[in-house]
Amino acid sequence: MATIKLTYFDVDGGRGEPIRLILSWAGIDFEDNRFPFSEFAEVRKKTPFKQVPIVEMDGAVITQTNALCRYFGKLAGLYPDNDMAALLCDEAMDVIEDITAKFVATFSLKGDDLKQSRETLADGPLKHVLSWLEQRVTDSNSGWLAGGEVTIADLKVWVFVRSLLSGQFDHISPTLVFELAPKVVEHCNKVAALPKLVEYYSKRKLSENS
Amino acid sequence: MATIKLTYFDVDGGRGEPIRLILSWAGIDFEDNRFPFSEFAEVRKKTPFKQVPIVEMDGAVITQTNALCRYFGKLAGLYPDNDMAALLCDEAMDVIEDITAKFVATFSLKGDDLKQSRETLADGPLKHVLSWLEQRVTDSNSGWLAGGEVTIADLKVWVFVRSLLSGQFDHISPTLVFELAPKVVEHCNKVAALPKLVEYYSKRKLSENS
Repeated sequence: MATIKLTYFDVDGGRGEPIRLILSWAGIDFEDNRFPFSEFAEVRKKTPFKQVPIVEMDGAVITQTNALCRYFGKLAGLYPDNDMAALLCDEAMDVIEDITAKFVATFSLKGDDLKQSRETLADGPLKHVLSWLEQRVTDSNSGWLAGGEVTIADLKVWVFVRSLLSGQFDHISPTLVFELAPKVVEHCNKVAALPKLVEYYSKRKLSENS
Repeated sequence: MATIKLTYFDVDGGRGEPIRLILSWAGIDFEDNRFPFSEFAEVRKKTPFKQVPIVEMDGAVITQTNALCRYFGKLAGLYPDNDMAALLCDEAMDVIEDITAKFVATFSLKGDDLKQSRETLADGPLKHVLSWLEQRVTDSNSGWLAGGEVTIADLKVWVFVRSLLSGQFDHISPTLVFELAPKVVEHCNKVAALPKLVEYYSKRKLSENS
């Protein structure tokens, strides 16, 4: 396996976190190159699209979080072999990317502008995404989003919904998730209890405290 | 095969066009449900995310253009079997989605706001995308973007670059493409000459004139 270096913010969330989880799930060693937000202006200069995450593999720089999740997801056994299940998996991944981009567009706003943008987001795109996820989980026979097994889509949805539930986004109340998507909350609890993820976060806590 | 209905604007471009091309390439019959921009306000109400394209397959509504391109791309033989080639293919697809979203964000602007946004786009994100594509085409042994054969990424990049070259975007000069990405122009000429695409557009012209 190539040497792998992931560069992303020093947060356990966002577009970098699913890649970390999937690499860890696959048991693939990688350099987890975390940097503080204060260094983003410098870090981004060296990336192809002035964005993170990027992954360096034997010198090649690869961008785009969903593409990377899919690649490592295949190695981790977290990507469906069945074409229709793969379509549903990919769709959910892209749905979360779409709404993530809409959140990111509000990060530089302040005061009333932030409040108005976040409320518009909550009452429109975010509501649509949560309702759609609720329906997908409701319609699922397995409880997973795509096919009969856990996939990268379940992990990515969980990372996103967890961030909503944490209350970290001003003017976006966690109660919105409980109201619109109670089955998605159950789904998230199921993901959080996956032994591979429990193991990852217990190790992560140790490394943070060491 | 399921009955397939694609709903998208009545334009030979944007996020719907690669799906049409890939379905046609695969020889899959589908209902090409085109609507004029003036009907978008009505059409979007019936879609999960108030966005198009959507594809209906035997009653199920599937969203997200790249997910759909990948699914139909597998059926068309336009998606790499090799995992690393698939990663590069997916990356290029997501790069074009990213820049497309940035263009779409300018569509509602007018006057100086439009001019300023488009110039910022041309001098930043678009420049990065064109330079990156130029490097990828330059580095390619086959002349295709991902692996040794034409893939959905080549088609999607072509649809996007063709729209730039058409001059349809105010304040974005087609000369930018020739200056920053001459090899991408060559790549696009190669895509345009693919017999399956030539056939598709000659039939399309006939249907438009009939």
